[in-house]
Amino acid sequence: MKIVLDAMGSDEHPAPDVEGAVLAAREYKETIILVGDEARIKAELVKHKTDGLSIEVVHASQAVAMTDKPGTVGRGKPDSSMHVGMRLVKEGGADAFVTMGNTGAALAIATLHVLRRISGVYRPALSAILRLQERSMILLDIGANADCKPEWMAQFALMGSLYAEHALKNNKPRVGLLSNGEEAGKGSALVQETAELLLTGGVNFIGNVEPKEVLKGGVDVAVMDGFSGNVMLKTMEAFGSALFGLIRQELMADSRSKLAGLLAKPAFRRVYRQVDPFEIGGAPLLGVDGVVIIGHGRSNGIAVKNAIRQARNAVNGRIVPAIRQGLSTNAQAAVADGFGEQG
Amino acid sequence: MKIVLDAMGSDEHPAPDVEGAVLAAREYKETIILVGDEARIKAELVKHKTDGLSIEVVHASQAVAMTDKPGTVGRGKPDSSMHVGMRLVKEGGADAFVTMGNTGAALAIATLHVLRRISGVYRPALSAILRLQERSMILLDIGANADCKPEWMAQFALMGSLYAEHALKNNKPRVGLLSNGEEAGKGSALVQETAELLLTGGVNFIGNVEPKEVLKGGVDVAVMDGFSGNVMLKTMEAFGSALFGLIRQELMADSRSKLAGLLAKPAFRRVYRQVDPFEIGGAPLLGVDGVVIIGHGRSNGIAVKNAIRQARNAVNGRIVPAIRQGLSTNAQAAVADGFGEQG
Repeated sequence: MKIVLDAMGSDEHPAPDVEGAVLAAREYKETIILVGDEARIKAELVKHKTDGLSIEVVHASQAVAMTDKPGTVGRGKPDSSMHVGMRLVKEGGADAFVTMGNTGAALAIATLHVLRRISGVYRPALSAILRLQERSMILLDIGANADCKPEWMAQFALMGSLYAEHALKNNKPRVGLLSNGEEAGKGSALVQETAELLLTGGVNFIGNVEPKEVLKGGVDVAVMDGFSGNVMLKTMEAFGSALFGLIRQELMADSRSKLAGLLAKPAFRRVYRQVDPFEIGGAPLLGVDGVVIIGHGRSNGIAVKNAIRQARNAVNGRIVPAIRQGLSTNAQAAVADGFGEQG
Repeated sequence: MKIVLDAMGSDEHPAPDVEGAVLAAREYKETIILVGDEARIKAELVKHKTDGLSIEVVHASQAVAMTDKPGTVGRGKPDSSMHVGMRLVKEGGADAFVTMGNTGAALAIATLHVLRRISGVYRPALSAILRLQERSMILLDIGANADCKPEWMAQFALMGSLYAEHALKNNKPRVGLLSNGEEAGKGSALVQETAELLLTGGVNFIGNVEPKEVLKGGVDVAVMDGFSGNVMLKTMEAFGSALFGLIRQELMADSRSKLAGLLAKPAFRRVYRQVDPFEIGGAPLLGVDGVVIIGHGRSNGIAVKNAIRQARNAVNGRIVPAIRQGLSTNAQAAVADGFGEQG
């Protein structure tokens, strides 16, 4: 298997990206193709032991910045590491593309310019993967589509369910629909119409769920519109970091608390590992015609390695053929809505 | 000032409700009117020292259950403690109504059956109050309206801003609009149209904000539609309790961690106090023609007392006249949309 890694992705690129590539090549014994500024990548690579590892470098003359606008970068930087890397996947030279870079840009370049949608997909969805009690679950959409239609949401449910089954190895994944109250009949008009579509089959729909149910691991797939999904994910990040900040502050307040903090370090490390997004590394952009995994900009080498593991699971699970197959047998495919044809 | 407390509200009613009433009467020297099953209230009251306190009891023959449907309870239980209590406010016999009971029922009974909307209000909004770094902020709508229109959201902003100014004593409150990205032009169609309305004045609009900004205290009023507001609030509750659960578990894992946990108790108590919703006690239902404060069903006596304090602040801040005045000078009033006239 060959996995392309965008070496220009993370906030501190290319150091964490190259480190992650080396770690992944060593642990997974796959070929990692680093795409980006060749000189800078090679200057990083010499800092690592790479004997016997399968690491290739492909040059790209441009790089997408975190501040680049998704709407303009697709045409504006046609030789960016994202373009070059995704083209390798498109043309069969690699199996997956992984980036820690600008999410909106990766979404636009994948969807509109290079990989395009799998035939029949209304809209690709960004996902997040949470790991709770040794079980992985997928949330989608978490931000690609601020305004959704019920039939898009039903497709998110199908794609997420296939990902949970094929890449996360959850048997008969339970699909829940995020709502403000669990009773049928509650929820926005969008939720109510989506729930009706989900009841007609294709996925193992267990009903509407509130955030509590999702965070308890009561579902394997949590379906949501990109606006409230984004709010949910960012609330977790912000609240978690605020809470850890508060705990750190109070454990510094006096000598008794300081001693407690010192003794509690291993316990806190165990807690942190269970909520650390870097343990997952990245999550798939579902619905595009190729495996694309997007991670956090502030990733370290371990997070990059874990994102590459996610890509490997997706490739091994043959997620793209599974979605193509799933769309045709579930009659949920978009016939022709003109989206994405302008790229 | 006379504040009505629904004695049949909390999950464990009437014990926590009566205890909270006694604590409030003692601390704030106001008259508390307990409404509900007179015999049960009196049986509770004798357990407390009430000498010199101004506590009255008004009988109501019915009580709203947590499982009652908001849509039927308004007409179905016309002599519930919520109806009787709100009627006291409506008829001038009291200044505010406080309940720990069924939120949906309180919303329906207030809006459609007893108090009705302040003239010109499109839709009342449920709010939550957070206290961050010694400063209170208000979030609304957190669940009354799953599907919102831009002009309703603009009114939420105005009502929230007036509450922040008059009841929470924030001078020139900063109003933020919850979005998936802070840049203007990001966000759902609803967010974009609402932002345009907010820019035309009436409130101190500082722009779109993400959950991180809200939780940092970067705004005094966070405006959101009831669906994503509900998701945000419930995500905080669920994530906070999951995180505390995880910490508790890991601090029990071995003897070193157990010792740490023991020593850290006061520090954790300080942390908890800062994120404890019971410290706030309750939050206003804004837009109805009377002060209504709604708290958690699982409130204890302290939480009930704090909810009564919130009611007192709202009455002292003259929030209902302030909203009436604000709507007329800001030309944001609903002229006639037929809502709420059927009750």
